Amino acid sequence: MPKISNKGLLMPQSPIRKLVPYAEAAKKKGTKVYHLNIGQPDIKTPKIALDAVKNNRIEVLSYARSEGSEEYREKLSGYYHKNNIKVEASNIIATTGGSEALLFTIGSISDPGDEIIIPEPFYANYNGFSTASGVKVIPVISKIEHNFSLPDIEDFEQLISSKTKAILICNPGNPTGYLYSKDEIKKLKQLVLKHDLFLIADEVYREFTYDGNTHHSVMSETGLEQHAIMIDSVSKRYSMCGARIGCIVSKNSEFINTALKFAQARLSPPTYALIASEAALDTPQGYFNEVIDEYVERRNTLITELNKIEGVKVANPKGAFYCIAELPVDDTDNFARWMLEEFHYQNETLMVAPASGFYSTKGEGKNQVRIAYVLNKQELIRCATILRIALARYQKQDC
Amino acid sequence: MPKISNKGLLMPQSPIRKLVPYAEAAKKKGTKVYHLNIGQPDIKTPKIALDAVKNNRIEVLSYARSEGSEEYREKLSGYYHKNNIKVEASNIIATTGGSEALLFTIGSISDPGDEIIIPEPFYANYNGFSTASGVKVIPVISKIEHNFSLPDIEDFEQLISSKTKAILICNPGNPTGYLYSKDEIKKLKQLVLKHDLFLIADEVYREFTYDGNTHHSVMSETGLEQHAIMIDSVSKRYSMCGARIGCIVSKNSEFINTALKFAQARLSPPTYALIASEAALDTPQGYFNEVIDEYVERRNTLITELNKIEGVKVANPKGAFYCIAELPVDDTDNFARWMLEEFHYQNETLMVAPASGFYSTKGEGKNQVRIAYVLNKQELIRCATILRIALARYQKQDC
Repeated sequence: MPKISNKGLLMPQSPIRKLVPYAEAAKKKGTKVYHLNIGQPDIKTPKIALDAVKNNRIEVLSYARSEGSEEYREKLSGYYHKNNIKVEASNIIATTGGSEALLFTIGSISDPGDEIIIPEPFYANYNGFSTASGVKVIPVISKIEHNFSLPDIEDFEQLISSKTKAILICNPGNPTGYLYSKDEIKKLKQLVLKHDLFLIADEVYREFTYDGNTHHSVMSETGLEQHAIMIDSVSKRYSMCGARIGCIVSKNSEFINTALKFAQARLSPPTYALIASEAALDTPQGYFNEVIDEYVERRNTLITELNKIEGVKVANPKGAFYCIAELPVDDTDNFARWMLEEFHYQNETLMVAPASGFYSTKGEGKNQVRIAYVLNKQELIRCATILRIALARYQKQDC
Repeated sequence: MPKISNKGLLMPQSPIRKLVPYAEAAKKKGTKVYHLNIGQPDIKTPKIALDAVKNNRIEVLSYARSEGSEEYREKLSGYYHKNNIKVEASNIIATTGGSEALLFTIGSISDPGDEIIIPEPFYANYNGFSTASGVKVIPVISKIEHNFSLPDIEDFEQLISSKTKAILICNPGNPTGYLYSKDEIKKLKQLVLKHDLFLIADEVYREFTYDGNTHHSVMSETGLEQHAIMIDSVSKRYSMCGARIGCIVSKNSEFINTALKFAQARLSPPTYALIASEAALDTPQGYFNEVIDEYVERRNTLITELNKIEGVKVANPKGAFYCIAELPVDDTDNFARWMLEEFHYQNETLMVAPASGFYSTKGEGKNQVRIAYVLNKQELIRCATILRIALARYQKQDC
């Protein structure tokens, strides 16, 4: 039998995926499962985007341009300008989701054996895209005690070698909910300029910042033009995860021209999704205000409720819609499975994401979970109750 | 300035892309350009697929399943059964176009430095996907004199080394239009079994076979279950290139499980396009009959007209909608550019694909072009006239 590649064997499988069969089995037994495990918001997609697709007049569903139409990228640059990100259409390549943007970026700047430094915990699929490109993720640890703020620059410098091609951050962070300050971005800028590295920033949660904090993009830093690469997506901004439209943004034209070759090889992003994404740019500000208000309330509810549970420690997120919580258990992989497999409270249980999948340092995050506050306030209160009872029962059983 | 990857530098740019600015300049001058250069059919997408998207009732545009829904893959397996390809839903992973299917396949079976043997001329992007994976394409030449039939098995064997992971064919072929016979598929089967290689068959043009010939899939060969990987797409079958839905099909479960990890890392194929693709499976047979009749007429017209031109040699395609024509010029890259830049006949000209981009052996195919017969009969006759006059003028000027 012909052999699978080493790369294929190394491709990580997310710990959430391993839980899916247990969630399905629980549902089959009639247990209601609250999904706090995924970043799939329940928020409605803007009507203007949905209607654009419904009212399309396509007769031949043709390829789009590999980099997205001039019109779309022009309009997108207008959106960025409003967000203090001064980029033009020529700085943008539309991609099939933020996922593809990351894949093309990693391919354009690194060869097999190269390394990318990422503060951990980090979005698990960064590992997948890196592995797919034969690139090694070098983690630099950030701590729940410090709310997952930027690790010391010395910690980064210790890890930089001739193989290092880039530093990758997610801002605001999935899974941490941490929002990097302007000062932290400037520190990273000095670091990448000193070592001549790319600074890749996944900024797909740009709109989701709370408590009066504002997002500061790597694209807004002068002097960083040749080093900054922004990853973006319509998935979270407009609650259209299923569209699969993202983009790569950079003022480094050599990089953009290289990424464009990857984009041309796969022909084009999906045409219907481009129609939805272009229309979504006209979403009224009122939509975002409502959404952000809703998320602030959800976050406040969740954090308040979690803090009431004995032994639970939680970092207060300033952005995105995730938090990392430390639970009074040894291994959240086991606990999460147990909640689905053996536990229910009044026929209800939870699915959470064990945080070990967001760390690449072995053993880190074993007592942490990521909770996505993508459910409404009442449901989140209910979830906290279920978690409290589950923890009490699990600890008792453990003794 | 931070450096681009070697991989990025190596990523090929299609020779068609290089011609695009010349085509745009010609249009600006008021010259009508007939596009024979791309596989974008003018055929209408089945109404049933377009309507399914128009009538969707989505409120939250959510992620689809990474491998496509159970329902879609079940229905797709029904379509395959009707085509004598006995596969089940579990043998299928839905992908974002045939492009992604190839990328995941190459990633799952080969590591950087590995090799894949492909009969040339071949679809230019096979080179792109291989390069993106750090994999080397080893070409084995097929000849216009033999209508681009399968090269001798000895020619393949000479190229097989410990680095060889797979043989990749396109059947029916882009850019050759050649349809491999059952006998040729059996020869390839013996070869891959002997050397324990994967046999990847890109079968996206399955429906487009002419003159009573029928397509024989690698999936229909018994004994090849662990070695055969089929690449498919809705793009050409339903004239929905812009949907970006394809799939990987294999009975090798270790391979499918590995490819699934790549699929999970990028989350999901585009949701709207999945809706269109699932509905398209109910396209009535009448649609295909009309389309095939149309293509046969186009092919007959084109081949007849090309054969009338002195010095033009053309392989008669038995499938897909391309042919390779040898022209009485030294370098079709130059000739194709000249047709756009300096030539017009009654304010009209042609864009063709220089065939050098479909060869990886340097110098091969320099006097060939690929012509896609994706225009109607009257336009094709006009195109042949323009080509005849262009060749005459170009040759005269050359002297």
